[in-house]
Amino acid sequence: MQTLLLNSDDVHANCQMDELISAIEDAFAAYENGDAQMPPKSYIDLPQYNGDFRSMPAYLDAGDWDAAGIKWVNVHPDNGDKYDLPTVMGTMIYSDPENAFPLALMDGTELTMLRTGAAAAVATDHLAVEDATTMGLIGAGVQSYTQLRAISEIRPIEEVVVSDLSEERVANFIDAFEDDFDVRAGSIEEAAGCDVLSTVTPVEDPIVPRDAVGDHTHINAMGADAEGKHELADDVLLDAKLVIDDFDQTTHSGEINVPYHEGVLVDSDIYGAIGEIVIGAKEGRTADDGISVFDSTGLAIQDVAAAHVAYEHANENDNGYEFDLLGLAE
Amino acid sequence: MQTLLLNSDDVHANCQMDELISAIEDAFAAYENGDAQMPPKSYIDLPQYNGDFRSMPAYLDAGDWDAAGIKWVNVHPDNGDKYDLPTVMGTMIYSDPENAFPLALMDGTELTMLRTGAAAAVATDHLAVEDATTMGLIGAGVQSYTQLRAISEIRPIEEVVVSDLSEERVANFIDAFEDDFDVRAGSIEEAAGCDVLSTVTPVEDPIVPRDAVGDHTHINAMGADAEGKHELADDVLLDAKLVIDDFDQTTHSGEINVPYHEGVLVDSDIYGAIGEIVIGAKEGRTADDGISVFDSTGLAIQDVAAAHVAYEHANENDNGYEFDLLGLAE
Repeated sequence: MQTLLLNSDDVHANCQMDELISAIEDAFAAYENGDAQMPPKSYIDLPQYNGDFRSMPAYLDAGDWDAAGIKWVNVHPDNGDKYDLPTVMGTMIYSDPENAFPLALMDGTELTMLRTGAAAAVATDHLAVEDATTMGLIGAGVQSYTQLRAISEIRPIEEVVVSDLSEERVANFIDAFEDDFDVRAGSIEEAAGCDVLSTVTPVEDPIVPRDAVGDHTHINAMGADAEGKHELADDVLLDAKLVIDDFDQTTHSGEINVPYHEGVLVDSDIYGAIGEIVIGAKEGRTADDGISVFDSTGLAIQDVAAAHVAYEHANENDNGYEFDLLGLAE
Repeated sequence: MQTLLLNSDDVHANCQMDELISAIEDAFAAYENGDAQMPPKSYIDLPQYNGDFRSMPAYLDAGDWDAAGIKWVNVHPDNGDKYDLPTVMGTMIYSDPENAFPLALMDGTELTMLRTGAAAAVATDHLAVEDATTMGLIGAGVQSYTQLRAISEIRPIEEVVVSDLSEERVANFIDAFEDDFDVRAGSIEEAAGCDVLSTVTPVEDPIVPRDAVGDHTHINAMGADAEGKHELADDVLLDAKLVIDDFDQTTHSGEINVPYHEGVLVDSDIYGAIGEIVIGAKEGRTADDGISVFDSTGLAIQDVAAAHVAYEHANENDNGYEFDLLGLAE
């Protein structure tokens, strides 16, 4: 019995987006149904290096399959300048829940991008208009790519507007997608007028004003992942059908954390959790709905679900590198 | 930049015991001095599989070096019968604290055994008589081997008495050590009369009576790692200079957890933490001392310190397998 090692390319190749979206939806349902365990993230803060580590263990039982594991992930904002390394890197240990054998060790960086895209796709599937053909992206960094890839799996996206302060990032994004979509650079207002919008910036002062947002735009607010971060004007949040991934995480560090702590946005402004919609306890978009917002902070169960998809595919296809970590192979 | 993969053999070969003991001592000192971070272990309980997972993240700054990482470890008692797998398996992610690059992924099973032996050696070095030549072992399972290997590094052990219900385990232990020590099978009483005793059993009813213990025996109580476990008679604990690794962990699941919760053993019966002795805030053994006990539950900082030793050696000696986990190597 060996442990499968999957690097970033292996994770990318084996996390097939349609299956990943389905697994993430299963994970949200398991969490809502009480069939998941997700201890609070624990932090190690290293101010001397301007960085931190987070540990994200989880287990979920989706009925047909269950999965356990832990992602160890950091945020070191000086990494690019000082070390030519990504700000965020992750490593995932994926274990068999039945006997705890470490089935796979995999890159958690690519995994995080993919599962984040897939979470936005699940929310978009339940909250965007059915015939959404236009998509806006505010922020053209690494997360924007998986947003478009994932969301175009579940809606017939044709036109894409990308907005970013960096012309280079915009050009790279267009290069990557111009064969598959009618993709162009645009203003924040043009992006926010699309049927679906994903915001993937680290800003602390909202950059999306209320009047820029289309009548029935669904917004995936993906950027906020720490106290003080805030991409959308408060009026956008207050006027929207507002859906969160997890109450504790979103009020602590999600898109709603600032207005929530200022008392501008209160519990009754939150329509529900994505899990409630996935299991049918609450309705997704209805004919009467205008704008909707999904506040995504990223849950450990998403990582475990994504690791499940990556491992199962890689194992079937003999991808990755087998390693006798425990010295149990003969 | 690549990630070094170390399997159980690599960990064994590169955790040189003298350096490991020194690193574990540094870790206890860093913890006592407030130069370590060790969030509480978080648990995932899976009663349907009679098992659990624990995540153990830590950071420590030993002055000359610092280290960060996480061990993901399980306890699945049915593994042997059902899957021919160890009850306890661990996987360790060892990261550079400065930029969080995953320097190494390594087997945490062998690492746990080694760092547990080294912790007993640190305690024995401070608490046993200087000329300790006899050592008893109660329990001849996997942990007993590293107890003898580690403790014989810091005391001139010549005679060894091993006691276990399984004749096979005793015979295997004697086979392993008869070239290096005068080693023989014996009763619990014979083992407990030695200068140093390590107990490494999972019992819940104490098996070491007060009158079996030698006048100046130092006992490393290593077996208890869960509520209800208890190897030494209460009188042994109450009469001893009683040293713990960590107050929260030992009162929750260490050797003292049962008498502590029954109120038989109270705070004032605890002499101090091993870290206090290591940094010189409290004395170790003095001429007046009789028996002493070290209650060890195992701390996440020990794993990180051990991973540091394993990684540094392996890296210097080009051991292990280099893997481009993050896809950053050119």
